[in-house]
Amino acid sequence: MRPSSSPSEPPAAGLFDAVLARGPVPALVSDAAWLQAMLDAEAALARAEAAVGIFPAAYAEAIATACHADRYDVTRLSAEAADSGNPVIPLVRALTALVQAAAGDDAAGWVHFGATSQDVLDTATGIVAGHAGTAIVNDLRNAGDAAARLARDHATTLMAGRTLLQQATPTTFGLAAATWLDGLDRATDDVWAAVSALPVQLGGATGTLASLGPHGVAVLGEFARQLGLSEPVVAWHTSRVPVARFATALGVASGAIAKVAGDVVHLAQTEIGEVSEGNPARGGSSTMPHKRNPVAAVSALAGARQAPGLVATLLASMEQEHQRAAGAWHAEWQPLRSLLVSTGSAAAWLADCLSDLQVDAARMGSNLGLTGGLVLGERISTALQPAVGRLEAHDLVAAASRRAVEENIELLDVLLATSEIRDHLKEDDLRRLMDPATYLGSAAVFVDRAVARHEALR
Amino acid sequence: MRPSSSPSEPPAAGLFDAVLARGPVPALVSDAAWLQAMLDAEAALARAEAAVGIFPAAYAEAIATACHADRYDVTRLSAEAADSGNPVIPLVRALTALVQAAAGDDAAGWVHFGATSQDVLDTATGIVAGHAGTAIVNDLRNAGDAAARLARDHATTLMAGRTLLQQATPTTFGLAAATWLDGLDRATDDVWAAVSALPVQLGGATGTLASLGPHGVAVLGEFARQLGLSEPVVAWHTSRVPVARFATALGVASGAIAKVAGDVVHLAQTEIGEVSEGNPARGGSSTMPHKRNPVAAVSALAGARQAPGLVATLLASMEQEHQRAAGAWHAEWQPLRSLLVSTGSAAAWLADCLSDLQVDAARMGSNLGLTGGLVLGERISTALQPAVGRLEAHDLVAAASRRAVEENIELLDVLLATSEIRDHLKEDDLRRLMDPATYLGSAAVFVDRAVARHEALR
Amino acid sequence: MRPSSSPSEPPAAGLFDAVLARGPVPALVSDAAWLQAMLDAEAALARAEAAVGIFPAAYAEAIATACHADRYDVTRLSAEAADSGNPVIPLVRALTALVQAAAGDDAAGWVHFGATSQDVLDTATGIVAGHAGTAIVNDLRNAGDAAARLARDHATTLMAGRTLLQQATPTTFGLAAATWLDGLDRATDDVWAAVSALPVQLGGATGTLASLGPHGVAVLGEFARQLGLSEPVVAWHTSRVPVARFATALGVASGAIAKVAGDVVHLAQTEIGEVSEGNPARGGSSTMPHKRNPVAAVSALAGARQAPGLVATLLASMEQEHQRAAGAWHAEWQPLRSLLVSTGSAAAWLADCLSDLQVDAARMGSNLGLTGGLVLGERISTALQPAVGRLEAHDLVAAASRRAVEENIELLDVLLATSEIRDHLKEDDLRRLMDPATYLGSAAVFVDRAVARHEALR
Amino acid sequence: MRPSSSPSEPPAAGLFDAVLARGPVPALVSDAAWLQAMLDAEAALARAEAAVGIFPAAYAEAIATACHADRYDVTRLSAEAADSGNPVIPLVRALTALVQAAAGDDAAGWVHFGATSQDVLDTATGIVAGHAGTAIVNDLRNAGDAAARLARDHATTLMAGRTLLQQATPTTFGLAAATWLDGLDRATDDVWAAVSALPVQLGGATGTLASLGPHGVAVLGEFARQLGLSEPVVAWHTSRVPVARFATALGVASGAIAKVAGDVVHLAQTEIGEVSEGNPARGGSSTMPHKRNPVAAVSALAGARQAPGLVATLLASMEQEHQRAAGAWHAEWQPLRSLLVSTGSAAAWLADCLSDLQVDAARMGSNLGLTGGLVLGERISTALQPAVGRLEAHDLVAAASRRAVEENIELLDVLLATSEIRDHLKEDDLRRLMDPATYLGSAAVFVDRAVARHEALR
Repeated sequence: MRPSSSPSEPPAAGLFDAVLARGPVPALVSDAAWLQAMLDAEAALARAEAAVGIFPAAYAEAIATACHADRYDVTRLSAEAADSGNPVIPLVRALTALVQAAAGDDAAGWVHFGATSQDVLDTATGIVAGHAGTAIVNDLRNAGDAAARLARDHATTLMAGRTLLQQATPTTFGLAAATWLDGLDRATDDVWAAVSALPVQLGGATGTLASLGPHGVAVLGEFARQLGLSEPVVAWHTSRVPVARFATALGVASGAIAKVAGDVVHLAQTEIGEVSEGNPARGGSSTMPHKRNPVAAVSALAGARQAPGLVATLLASMEQEHQRAAGAWHAEWQPLRSLLVSTGSAAAWLADCLSDLQVDAARMGSNLGLTGGLVLGERISTALQPAVGRLEAHDLVAAASRRAVEENIELLDVLLATSEIRDHLKEDDLRRLMDPATYLGSAAVFVDRAVARHEALR
Repeated sequence: MRPSSSPSEPPAAGLFDAVLARGPVPALVSDAAWLQAMLDAEAALARAEAAVGIFPAAYAEAIATACHADRYDVTRLSAEAADSGNPVIPLVRALTALVQAAAGDDAAGWVHFGATSQDVLDTATGIVAGHAGTAIVNDLRNAGDAAARLARDHATTLMAGRTLLQQATPTTFGLAAATWLDGLDRATDDVWAAVSALPVQLGGATGTLASLGPHGVAVLGEFARQLGLSEPVVAWHTSRVPVARFATALGVASGAIAKVAGDVVHLAQTEIGEVSEGNPARGGSSTMPHKRNPVAAVSALAGARQAPGLVATLLASMEQEHQRAAGAWHAEWQPLRSLLVSTGSAAAWLADCLSDLQVDAARMGSNLGLTGGLVLGERISTALQPAVGRLEAHDLVAAASRRAVEENIELLDVLLATSEIRDHLKEDDLRRLMDPATYLGSAAVFVDRAVARHEALR
Repeated sequence: MRPSSSPSEPPAAGLFDAVLARGPVPALVSDAAWLQAMLDAEAALARAEAAVGIFPAAYAEAIATACHADRYDVTRLSAEAADSGNPVIPLVRALTALVQAAAGDDAAGWVHFGATSQDVLDTATGIVAGHAGTAIVNDLRNAGDAAARLARDHATTLMAGRTLLQQATPTTFGLAAATWLDGLDRATDDVWAAVSALPVQLGGATGTLASLGPHGVAVLGEFARQLGLSEPVVAWHTSRVPVARFATALGVASGAIAKVAGDVVHLAQTEIGEVSEGNPARGGSSTMPHKRNPVAAVSALAGARQAPGLVATLLASMEQEHQRAAGAWHAEWQPLRSLLVSTGSAAAWLADCLSDLQVDAARMGSNLGLTGGLVLGERISTALQPAVGRLEAHDLVAAASRRAVEENIELLDVLLATSEIRDHLKEDDLRRLMDPATYLGSAAVFVDRAVARHEALR
Repeated sequence: MRPSSSPSEPPAAGLFDAVLARGPVPALVSDAAWLQAMLDAEAALARAEAAVGIFPAAYAEAIATACHADRYDVTRLSAEAADSGNPVIPLVRALTALVQAAAGDDAAGWVHFGATSQDVLDTATGIVAGHAGTAIVNDLRNAGDAAARLARDHATTLMAGRTLLQQATPTTFGLAAATWLDGLDRATDDVWAAVSALPVQLGGATGTLASLGPHGVAVLGEFARQLGLSEPVVAWHTSRVPVARFATALGVASGAIAKVAGDVVHLAQTEIGEVSEGNPARGGSSTMPHKRNPVAAVSALAGARQAPGLVATLLASMEQEHQRAAGAWHAEWQPLRSLLVSTGSAAAWLADCLSDLQVDAARMGSNLGLTGGLVLGERISTALQPAVGRLEAHDLVAAASRRAVEENIELLDVLLATSEIRDHLKEDDLRRLMDPATYLGSAAVFVDRAVARHEALR
C-alpha cells in the first residue's frame, strides 16, 4: 500500500471523540483523507491511461498536479453532490476546471476518462480502508505485544479460572493473557489479509470499460499497480465481496477486542481487584474521589460494540441491483467509515489499556483462596477415582465440599477428617493435591505456544 | 418540548452529507446542539433545586447565565473527556469556573449539585432527541401529505398491481399511494409517541439522589417540568427502555420510508417509467446525458437502510450493569446520533421525492395492457365458477391464458373464441369483465379511509 | 384475542430447547399452532363472507368444520409448498378437497374466496403472535411480580451501588430491584400494546379485494371481529409497520430482561455472592462438585441476546416491493418465530430466576464495607462544602481517601485524625455521616413509586 | 474432514421448510446430527487419550462403541439439560451408563476424561459446521458452474447495463453472469477456507487441561488428528474468533447469493422479461393462472436475508467472560444453526435457479432499444470530444438526447439531422457508433477472466 500523496489534517475533535474516536483512524478517514484518496485515484487513472498510450504523459502529469485536496472546498463539493447523488461528479467538474485553467482543454479532456463515479469512490475507499486498516493492524499488534508480555510475565501467576463468573479450577493469569493474545493475533491476521486484498475499481458506466476500447484491461492492471491495490477479475460495482470481507474482518477484530476489554473490566471490579488501569490521571469520578474507573477498557468496549450492527448493515448492503445499485452502495459509505473509526478507537484504547495494566498477583492469590479449596475438588475426585470408582469419588468430594461450605472451613480440613478419603489418600498427598500451583496442567505450554506464534508474526 | 435556549449553528457539511445528512436533523444533533442541551440540563437542574429551596434563586440564575454553548470550546472539552470517559466532567469543571468568575464561590458551589454525569448527558439526549425527533415527525408528515395528495389525485388512475415483481391484478396508483400513506402515518404516530415520552434523568451517583436529602423527588419533578420532558418513576441509568423505545420507533419509521422509496425506484425503472422525480436539476449522470436518476428516492433508501443495524446496536446496549454500565452506555451515543441523522435524512429526502413526484398515468395504463389482459384472468375464472365449478373454471382460464401467451394475442380474443367459455359468458359480459376499471373492488374506499385518517391526524 | 379453536400439541423437545426454548411459547408457535391459525383464518373468512351475504351460512360452517389442523399433514404441505413459495397454496387445495368430499362442490367453491395466500398467512401470524405475545406478557408480569416482591422486601437492605463495576455510593437492593421492575413493566406495556394492535390481513391479490365486489370492506370488518384482531385501514401486504412494531416491542422486552439477568449473574459471582438462584437441583457442574451456576439467569441472557439481530432482520424486511414482496415477506417468517421463542424463553427463565432468588443481605453489607468507607466520600465532601468551598472540600476528602487506601485503614479513622476536617465536622457528625443507612436519599420513595405503578397495572 | 460415523436422518419437514430450509443442510444440522457429533467427539477423545497411554485402548473402544446417536433419547436429554444449562452433561451421564453396562466401571471411569462440557459441544459444532459448510460450498460451486455456463453462452448477448435501475450503457448478459460468478467464487473461497480452519476444542474446566497432567498437549493434537479438524494454539472457550470467522464467511456468501437472486428477480419482472425460471411446475399463483413467479430466486433471497442479523448476533456474542461465558456462548447455538440452514437453503435455491434459468436474448435486445439509442449517447460524446472539446461534445449530445425524447424518435435520426454533429461524424460513423455490439469494450475479456478463474478452482 503506497501512502497517500499528502498527509491529511486531523479533523476537529467532536464532543464524544475522546471516548469514541481515539487513535490515528479518525484522521485517516476524514473528509480530507477521502477527498485526497479520490484525487489519488484520478491521478493514478490518468497516469495508467498515459502509460498504455491513450494520451501523452504530460496530460497525466497536468491532471496529477491538480490532484491535491487542499485545492478543493469540501463544503461546496458536498452541496453540489446533492443533485448528483455522490461527491465524485462535482469533484470531477472542479478537477477538470483546474486542469483546464492550468494546462488547457487538451489535458482537461482526459480527466476521469472512461471512468464512472463509482470507480473513483470505490478505489478511494480502497485507499482509505488500506491506510486505516493498516493503522488498526498496528494498534492490534501493540495490544498483542502487551498481551504477550503479560502472558510471559505471569506465566506462573496463579488465578482462579472462572466459568459463568463462578470460580472453577485454578489457572494462571499468564494463560488468560495468552488466550487474549491468541484471539487478537488471529483477528489481526484476518484484518491484514483483508487489507492486502483490497482492490481498485474500474469498469466505466456498466463494467465493460467501453470508452477505453481495447485498452480496458491494460489500464485496469496499470491502475492497480500505480495504487498498490489488487487487480479485480471483473468490475465489482455491485458484487461487494471485497467490502464485505474487509468489514467482517473488522467485526471479528472488534469482537476479539471486546473479549479482552470485558475481562479487564470484570477483573477490575472492586470486589475482585486483580487488575487496574495504570494511568493515574484517568478514571476519576466527578462525585467519588476514591474511584478509579477502567476508562480505557470501557472505552474499548464502547467502540467494539458498534461493530456487529454496522457489519450487519454492510452485509445487507451486498444485495445490489444490476450494474449499479439504487441505494445499497450509498448505504455502505457511512457504516464503513463508522466501523473503521469504532474499531480503530477500540484497538487504540485496548493497546493503551494493556500497555500499562497493573496486575495484583497477591489479590489473585487471595481470591483463589476464597472458596477454601473448593476449586480443587475436581482434582481430589480424580485422584480418588482409581480407588473407589468415579461416582463414589464424585459423591465423597461433593459431600466434603458441602460440609466445608456449611461449616465455613477449609476443604482440606474436611478431607483430612474424612476417613473414607483418608483410606486412599495420605495427608501429604492431600496437601500436595490441594496446592493449586501443581494443578495447572499444560498452562505453561499453552502460554509458550501463543507467545511463540505471536513472535513469529512480527 | 421547550426549544433549546439558543439555536445551534449548522455543522460544516461533510463530503457525503448532501446524500446522507439532508434536512434539519444534522444541525439539531451537532456537537453545538448537544453541548447546549447539556447546559440546558445544568440550568434547569439549578433552577429546580432553587425552586424547592435548596439554595437561593439568584445562584440558579448565575448558573443559568453561564449555560450558553458559545462560551465553551468543544475541542478542549473533548480532549479532557478522554481521562474521565465522558464530556460532562470537563464541562462541569468549565461551567463551575465561569460561575465562580462571574458570581463567586457561593453560587459556583451549587453547580451540578447532586447530579452525576449521566444525569446530564441522558437528559441532554432527551432534549436533543426531542428536537430531532420533532423535526423527523415534521418531515414524515410532509411526506405523508404528499402521499395523501397522490392518493387522492390518482384514486382512479389504473395501474398494474405487482406481486413478486410480476404483474398480478389491476389496482390504482391512488391505492398504492394510500398504502404508502398508511405506513408512514402509523410510523409517524409511533415516533411522536416516543418523542412525547422522552424522560429526564436524575438519580445522582447510584440512583438514590442521596445528596439531595429529602428533596430528591421534588427536584426531579421540577427538573422535568422545567425542560418539558417526562418524569421517570425511578432513575433509568441502566434501565434503557426509554432509549430503546425511541430508537425502535425511528427504526420502524426508516422501514416505512424504505418501502415507499423502494417503490419509487422500481416504478421509475426505464422499462416501467410510471413515475419520475420532478426536480430537473437532479439525477444527471457524469457519463450518460439522457439519464435522470431517482436521486431523492435512492438517497432516502441509503439513509433508511442504516437503521436496522443501528437499532440492533442500541437494543444490544440495553444490557447494562448495576447502577452504571461499563461500556454499554457509551456504546449508545454514536449509534443514536447516527440513527437520528440517517432517519432524518431519509425522511427529508422522501418528503422531497414525493412532493414533486411526476406520475405518468398513460404509461401506467399501457403497462397494464402489456400482458394482453392476462391480469384479469382471475376475474374470468371467478365469473365462470358458478356455472362450471371452481377447478373447471380455473383450468379453462389457465388454458386460454397459455394460448394467449403462445400465440401472442389478447386474452379477450382467446376467450371470445373458446366455446366452453362462450357457453356461459356473453361477448358483452366478457368485454366488461376484461375492463380493469371495473375490477377495482374497494380500492377507492381504501384510499378514502387512509386519507381520512391522515387528515384527522393533522 | 379469542383462543385458537383447538389447543396445539407441544412440539418434540430439541437438543437445545431446554435452555433456549423454555416456557409456553414454543408450543404456541409450533407448526401445528401455525397451521391451526391458518385454518382459523380460513374459517373466519368464510363466516365473514357468509355474514355479509356472499354465500349461505351453511357453506361457511362446512368450511369451518374442515378447519382442524389434525386433518392435515404438515410434511406433505411443506413438500408441496416448495413449488408455490408458501404453505397456503397447498393448504387451500387440501381444504377444498376436504370440503368438497364432505359438503360438495357448492361449498368447496367458496373456500378462500377473494383472499390471497398472504391474507391467510399474515392473519395466521397475527393469531399466533397474539397467543405467544400474551404468554410472553404473562411471564414478564410474573417476573415483574417477583421483582416487586424483592423491591418491597429489601427496601432497606443496604448494598453497594456500582458504577462501571466499581463500588460507588450506597444504595439498597430494594431500589435495584425496583429499577428492574420499572424496566420490565415499561417493556411489558409495550408488548401488550403491540399484541392488542395486531391486525388481520385481507386484500386479495393486490389489496383491492376486487373479487369481493362491493362487499370488501364489510367482509374485512367482520373478519377482524370474528378473530378478535384489529381492522387495518388498508391492506398492509407490503407495509409492514404492524410486524415491525410487534417485533421491536419484543426486542425492547428482551433488552429489559437482559439487564436484569445480567445483574443477577454479576451479583452471583463467587467474589460478590450477594444473590444465588434458589433451585438446588440446578446449576451443578460436571467437573466441579461445589459450583452452583446461575443457570436461569444465564439461559435468560442466552435467549434475550438473540433479539437485536432478529429485530434488525425484521426491520430490514420492511422494504417490500409494490403489492407483494419478492423475498422480504418470506424473510420475516423464521426471524419472527425465532424472536417469539427466544423472548418467550428469556421471559420464562427470568420469571423462574427471580421467583426464588436467594438474597444474602449480610454479604451485601460486608461488601459495602470493603472499601473502608470510601463509598461515603462524596457525602463528606458535600458536608464540608458550606464551610470550606467545593474545591477545598473535594481535595480534603480526596487526600483522606488516598491515605485510607495507602495505609489500608478505615476512612472514618483518617477523617477523625485530620484536623482540617475536624475543624468543621464533629466526631458524632462524622460517625453519622459515615453510616450508609442514613445516606439513601429518596431510595425508599423510588421503591414505593415503582411498586405502586406495578400494582396499578395488575 | 472425516464423515460422521453414522449418517443422520433428515428431520421432519416443517411448515416453512420447503421455502426456507432447502437442500442438504437441515439434515446435517439436525438434533440427530449434532448428537452424533457430540458422540464422535467423545469417541475421539477416548481414543486420543488411549493413544497417548492414559488408559488401555480397549476402554476407548468400549466408549466408542456406545457413541451412536440412535442409542440416545433427544427429548430426555433435552429435559435434563434444563438443570445443567447444556445438553452435554446429561449426555455424558447416559454415555457413562451405557459403557458401564457393557464394559464395566473401569472403562466407564474414563468417559469424557479431562474434558468439560464446552469441549464436547464446541468440537461437535466444528464437526457439524464442517459437514454443513462443505455442503454449502458444494451448492455454491453448483451455482457458480451454472453462472459460468451462462457467462460463456451469453458472452455476446447484448443487454442494457442498468445503473440505479435506469438503462445506462450496453453490456452483455455474459458479463452480468460473469460478475455473479466472480462474487460467488470469492465468497465460496472464504467459506471453504473457514471450513478448513475449524478447530477442535479441548481445555478442560478452565483451559489448562489440568486433569490430563503432562499429557494435555499430546491429547489435544491426537484429538484433532482423529477428527480431521485443526489444532488450536490454546483453548478458545471464550476467544471466539473461529466461530466468528466461520459465521462471517457464511454472511458474505449469503450476500453474494442475494446479489444474484435479486438480479434474477429484477430481470424477471413482467415489464423486463429477460429471464425466467425454467421449472414449469413452480411459481404458479393461487389466483392468477397466467403467472410464473421466480420462486427459486425469491426463496434464495428469503434465506440470504436472514444472514446479516444472525452474523451480528454471533459477532456480539464474542464478548465472553473469563474462562467460560455466562450466556454469550449459549447465545451462539441457535443463530449458528439458523445461519447454516438459511445460507444452505439460499445456496441450494440459487443453484436450482441458475441451473435452468431461461434467458430471452431477443427481449434483452428489444429492451436495449427502448431508449431509441440514448444508451449510446456517452459514446457519441466521446467520439465528438477530440473535435469540439469535452463540454461542447457533452452539450451537443445532451441537446440531441433531449430532442429525441421530446419528439419520441431515435437518437440516430436526431444526430444525423444535427449539422454541428454531422460536421465531425459521417453517417457511416454514426451508424457504427450507434451499434451497441461494437461498444462493449473489454466485456468479453472480463467474461473469459472470470470463467478461467472459476475453472481453475474446480
